Amino acid sequence: MEQQALLVRMHEIDNVAVVATRGGLPAGQRLDDGLVLREAVPQGHKVALRTIEAEAQVLRYGVAIGYALQRIEAGAWVHEGTMRMPEARALQNLPVATELRTAPPIEGLSFLGYRNADGSVGTRNLLAITTTVQCVAGVVEHAVARIRRELLPRFPHVDDVVALEHGYGCGVAIDAPDAHIPIRTLRNLSLNPNFGGEVMVVSLGCEKLQPEKLLPAGSIPLVDERAVADVGASAEACVPVVRLQDPAHGGFNGMLDAILRQAELHLQRLDARRRETVPASGLVVGIQCGGSDALSGVTANPALGRAVDMLVRAGATVLFSEVTEVRDGVALLTARARDHAVAERLVAELEWYDAYLRRGGADRSANTTPGNKKGGLSNIVEKAMGSIVKSGTLPIDFVLGPGERLGPGQRGLGFAATPASDFICGTLQAAAGMNVHVFTTGRGTPYGLAAVPVIKLATRSELAEQWPDLIDVDAGRIARGACSLDDVAREILDCILDVASGRRRRWAEHWGLHNAFTIFNPAPVT
Amino acid sequence: MEQQALLVRMHEIDNVAVVATRGGLPAGQRLDDGLVLREAVPQGHKVALRTIEAEAQVLRYGVAIGYALQRIEAGAWVHEGTMRMPEARALQNLPVATELRTAPPIEGLSFLGYRNADGSVGTRNLLAITTTVQCVAGVVEHAVARIRRELLPRFPHVDDVVALEHGYGCGVAIDAPDAHIPIRTLRNLSLNPNFGGEVMVVSLGCEKLQPEKLLPAGSIPLVDERAVADVGASAEACVPVVRLQDPAHGGFNGMLDAILRQAELHLQRLDARRRETVPASGLVVGIQCGGSDALSGVTANPALGRAVDMLVRAGATVLFSEVTEVRDGVALLTARARDHAVAERLVAELEWYDAYLRRGGADRSANTTPGNKKGGLSNIVEKAMGSIVKSGTLPIDFVLGPGERLGPGQRGLGFAATPASDFICGTLQAAAGMNVHVFTTGRGTPYGLAAVPVIKLATRSELAEQWPDLIDVDAGRIARGACSLDDVAREILDCILDVASGRRRRWAEHWGLHNAFTIFNPAPVT
Repeated sequence: MEQQALLVRMHEIDNVAVVATRGGLPAGQRLDDGLVLREAVPQGHKVALRTIEAEAQVLRYGVAIGYALQRIEAGAWVHEGTMRMPEARALQNLPVATELRTAPPIEGLSFLGYRNADGSVGTRNLLAITTTVQCVAGVVEHAVARIRRELLPRFPHVDDVVALEHGYGCGVAIDAPDAHIPIRTLRNLSLNPNFGGEVMVVSLGCEKLQPEKLLPAGSIPLVDERAVADVGASAEACVPVVRLQDPAHGGFNGMLDAILRQAELHLQRLDARRRETVPASGLVVGIQCGGSDALSGVTANPALGRAVDMLVRAGATVLFSEVTEVRDGVALLTARARDHAVAERLVAELEWYDAYLRRGGADRSANTTPGNKKGGLSNIVEKAMGSIVKSGTLPIDFVLGPGERLGPGQRGLGFAATPASDFICGTLQAAAGMNVHVFTTGRGTPYGLAAVPVIKLATRSELAEQWPDLIDVDAGRIARGACSLDDVAREILDCILDVASGRRRRWAEHWGLHNAFTIFNPAPVT
Repeated sequence: MEQQALLVRMHEIDNVAVVATRGGLPAGQRLDDGLVLREAVPQGHKVALRTIEAEAQVLRYGVAIGYALQRIEAGAWVHEGTMRMPEARALQNLPVATELRTAPPIEGLSFLGYRNADGSVGTRNLLAITTTVQCVAGVVEHAVARIRRELLPRFPHVDDVVALEHGYGCGVAIDAPDAHIPIRTLRNLSLNPNFGGEVMVVSLGCEKLQPEKLLPAGSIPLVDERAVADVGASAEACVPVVRLQDPAHGGFNGMLDAILRQAELHLQRLDARRRETVPASGLVVGIQCGGSDALSGVTANPALGRAVDMLVRAGATVLFSEVTEVRDGVALLTARARDHAVAERLVAELEWYDAYLRRGGADRSANTTPGNKKGGLSNIVEKAMGSIVKSGTLPIDFVLGPGERLGPGQRGLGFAATPASDFICGTLQAAAGMNVHVFTTGRGTPYGLAAVPVIKLATRSELAEQWPDLIDVDAGRIARGACSLDDVAREILDCILDVASGRRRRWAEHWGLHNAFTIFNPAPVT
């Protein structure tokens, strides 16, 4: 019995379409318009809808994702072996602010969040322990275990304690041109809205990244933790530092005691906080995709794009990222840049990244993984088009460099320029101020963060069924015809508001699945 | 009352000496030879023994560690503000194999270790779980907790289970020129002697660093973990891979079950192993210093150097490292190179590193931390001299690149070319095959590793007294005149044999203080 042939074409001029049918389609399968498959085509892979001559464009999303290496017959499987990748789009002569869609605001969306003194809003109530150097990580790990065991039971309104550990040690060229990126990342991570402004620092004492360099005076004053204990209430305006080499601590157990004493002061204040109704403008949603396949650009990412449009219309801030996955679609982004300044900043970030990759002898072909290709994504151009679609259709309001934090007035849709690596991107979005994370996956990843709740969307129903206890939203229903992009977009939006309000824990948070923060350090280590 | 003035001069031609007296010495202090201090000098800092004219050499260890910026009076404090750093030593026209000391072998040293099939010897009996990508880290963390709780109690001869987690994800330019370094590091970490050859891999499925790329066929065959369960005994010759995306696992709990099933097969074999008496040639001692001060080069490092000489004479292998901390003493190393091939390999590694730093806009001045300077180390030249002294005096038998594993016949004293960052260096030494780690510290660090036992030496008695539950050997007694370099060297040697034999757990292991493995990735991320 022939099975239902589900083909998805993204744009009317496309000469390829993607097989959405579970398990793929066999050779000889007859398609709606009378076309017959010349060979078996796996799910997520492309079929030629008409004959494509040698050197002719292979069109998907209305753009050339490649050029046929030789004549491709109608009904043939189109993959990376039958086409070559287009040249990288030059960063000159780009269209700027030519595609500025307007859409009416959405009124009245709100959630239950923790208001912070700096105007940001937390979706969780976490104590974070900032560390200046990996040296202290072993001690902090023990301190966290003791805080969980001895202190947290007395502070039921605090969700957890999170150590901001990282591999950043003294072996960094701290004055190298790019060394400011990891430093500002660590600084801004400690200011994430989910930590309620209760910054506490554990320092070794002799490290290059001194607490004063991490959190410069002027922004937040630093004080010795023993001084804080003395001054009491006025400590709210200070960042206390526990220095492990301080002779007063004695050895290991004294260090732990000092960290616990300091933590308790913060926990008292955090525990007094309560959720209140705040408008959607308090949301900072970081979006990302990982383990992409060809359905990423058909189901989960377009549905997320529609949810992003709604979020932005409701006043929320949304961050999309992953430089190497948008690089080949740069013209689509500059066309959506709010103004010339935004477009210039975007191009500057992409230029910096091109130079960074070139310096290391790499290029954009380094992206697309074996899993991407197996899933049907032939190259980074095709992957980029599917990646960009999750940013929706509205103008790009601002651009952040890697590790930068949202500035005053930076609201709406923003491009946070980060590597595509899931963990580095998530870390940099957390540093930017993300308080909810939405992650789409095709091949499947058990991704999670300790600091920010993560919602995971599957591009395929097979994955959602295979991982019922890891996937939160099944966007594969779109390919099956079981629901529309708008249905899933509304489900995503509801899910974000629920998760932000602490009403529902999704799977990563339910299990406590935590990937490490991974610091982007483009500077050398010494 | 005047206190005892302890001054340490390292070489007869030196025109500075280091104050070893606890708390430093006050202005007006009279020294043995009638010299009077012109100003207070802190412990670990340098005093001019005679007048040093402007532009004249400041001599310590018999070499110029700097040039006087202006005339320095006898009895004055000499620091980084009063001298300038010498130019970097060029890598041409170096002396080669000109200082090859011979020393009689030491017979009969042995310890109790676990013999491995590949000829290496374990000092611990650990199950390691190798991971191909950070994506799996959250699941593996849960699996490790379950293995500790549910399986380890049944396998009392197994010390622990260690997840080889790392931030290395798909966001790497995997074909960039330097990308082989992190890949071979991860491969060789999984082959560390303390893991008994029981390699098991947890893979996501779609990652760039596929298990076959991590552990290429030919070296060790890879098999699906379910196949291993089927074939039973013959599985010893294979490396099983648990792929989280394998549909057979279902979701989160199925993944955990699969990892536990596989772990149990390895634990059964590990649990059957027993320690036996093996000669000292089974030792691979990695040495490192961190948080150095000026006493590092006076107490702990020279004492360790004498212990290293004894270890090498007894047939053990010793690895010293930290390129940027030996770079300025390169001529001392090439003079000790066993032959021209070793010297050329050493120079090639240093040249590669010079280029790597230059590419990132950094240079050797990036080394020396604020703590180093506070401790009296004026610059990287002075630090290098104090660092090299811990490698002893015998010929350098071989050189390893970062992440390389000891090859056949590579025994004796080796230079493992690594960054100076404690965690990166320790990770690379573990990849090289280290089974005991000796770490000297002046300012103090609670450093520890999960995979290899660490012995910590303090350069100052003040630190040993301040951290009685973190420091294992107090080399500061040398500066106080309480014991000789040889006394401490013998103590270090005994300590190494004890720790290697599992007879005594030192503090890092006692508390379970573990720093993260930190992968050296000179290639860009994408």
